[in-house]
Amino acid sequence: MGGYPFLKGHGTENDFVLLPDHDGAVHGALDDARVVALCDRRAGIGGDGVLRVIRTRSMARIDPALEGRVGSAEWFMDYRNADGSIAEMCGNGVRVFVRHLIDEGLVPAGAPVPVATRAGIKTVSVASGTDELVADLGRPLLLDSSTVTVGNASWKARHVDLGNPHAVAFLDDADDLGPHGPVGPLLDEPGYDHDLYPHGVNIEFVRRLGPAHVAMRVHERGSGETRSCGTGACAVMVATADADGASRNTAYAVDVPGGRLTITWTADDRVLLQGPAVIVATGTTSL
Amino acid sequence: MGGYPFLKGHGTENDFVLLPDHDGAVHGALDDARVVALCDRRAGIGGDGVLRVIRTRSMARIDPALEGRVGSAEWFMDYRNADGSIAEMCGNGVRVFVRHLIDEGLVPAGAPVPVATRAGIKTVSVASGTDELVADLGRPLLLDSSTVTVGNASWKARHVDLGNPHAVAFLDDADDLGPHGPVGPLLDEPGYDHDLYPHGVNIEFVRRLGPAHVAMRVHERGSGETRSCGTGACAVMVATADADGASRNTAYAVDVPGGRLTITWTADDRVLLQGPAVIVATGTTSL
Repeated sequence: MGGYPFLKGHGTENDFVLLPDHDGAVHGALDDARVVALCDRRAGIGGDGVLRVIRTRSMARIDPALEGRVGSAEWFMDYRNADGSIAEMCGNGVRVFVRHLIDEGLVPAGAPVPVATRAGIKTVSVASGTDELVADLGRPLLLDSSTVTVGNASWKARHVDLGNPHAVAFLDDADDLGPHGPVGPLLDEPGYDHDLYPHGVNIEFVRRLGPAHVAMRVHERGSGETRSCGTGACAVMVATADADGASRNTAYAVDVPGGRLTITWTADDRVLLQGPAVIVATGTTSL
Repeated sequence: MGGYPFLKGHGTENDFVLLPDHDGAVHGALDDARVVALCDRRAGIGGDGVLRVIRTRSMARIDPALEGRVGSAEWFMDYRNADGSIAEMCGNGVRVFVRHLIDEGLVPAGAPVPVATRAGIKTVSVASGTDELVADLGRPLLLDSSTVTVGNASWKARHVDLGNPHAVAFLDDADDLGPHGPVGPLLDEPGYDHDLYPHGVNIEFVRRLGPAHVAMRVHERGSGETRSCGTGACAVMVATADADGASRNTAYAVDVPGGRLTITWTADDRVLLQGPAVIVATGTTSL
């Protein structure tokens, strides 16, 4: 079968089609339609998004607007949502991206890996004593509240920005977070304040499970409900730790439908996202 | 990356992971857990089921109970549902299976292809003048009615057997077949008569669109709602044609969420399932 190479990988079941295209010669500007076809879960390979693996200098040739704005890292993560739209960053995606770079020997072993993204350089390391990867997602912005709605239910939602916007809604402790609870099956995009979020927003629904331990579901703009969202889990942790008055460097467990992430808000005001990241298949497609 | 070979393909978005294992040496008895891992749409490759491509004589060595019961075709379709359970047959699956055999030159070009299955030999041909494949699913059994339920809604459902059991429920003409209509998002298995169907049943919801033209959704036992089900579409056609008093050899268009199937009930009492079947990716996995 002819075609071009791909891999499939995931971090807590936030899954991606990776497209190795080191010099940009395979995909050029990378059509929206190709991204949609690859991410289609029945007619394609299936994924929450596409991660093109491309050298930063090649990406800057394809999109001159990025020149000088994405830093000096060798590798650029060209991330696309499942609908083909561009997203600045993806916290689970950058961890899967670095798993691939490490697997293939494309970066020096044992050192933190800088990755250029549309939201600047992100650094990913192997968590000491584990096989998990930690992404430093930088400084969070903790902002005001607004309202999100599902059907007739509404919640106050904290606005947290991690390079992309989030609305974090806390359910009542007694509420079921599942598809039969007030959040429902999330067939449609929840309602939100379009003035506050003119470019859309990622919406998290949170239930507290214990000290420094929460569970969440997420509706990502451009992708619908997903099994996990790295920046979403970080936004949830920041909003929760702030509400808790927790001291910095407290590690929170954030359970997403696809697994568990461990998140730390450091004393120097950075958010560290830790969790598993694996490649499950590699091959060729002509989609 | 080490591992074993796979392909991914679909027929009207009823999608499958194909496992070439011609002599049974790769997968042996094929663990349920491996099927589940492969079919997982986020942590795996994703599919409604697995089609192992194995020689009939090799399959009979692995499962001696099949010896003498599966006919003399060279290739056996070892079909598994997404939960690992065995299913006798799959109408879209056998079409994708034969697409792969033709692509790889594993069968003589231009001739009908016999495929051994747990439901006996099925024959698949290229539909003349098209790229579609037609599977002869044999003689349908049209039986009595029972009741299926979703939440508080209930419908009378015709019992049709095509080697596997079906309950075909007709909606009122005004009813919305979508997730906001009375069928709902189908999060759970519909209710059905467990005495009539002790091993479970595939349940189809049907809306008439015009003469010899219907739309359907399906809940498959073992897989949940899928984008298409070949034997389900045939069951729907047979129940509809019977209700219509249609003459034999009338071709019906059956729209499933994943596309359109064309189904004919022949004068010699056989059901022919025609539609697209494609391979979209090939590679290696260690799942």
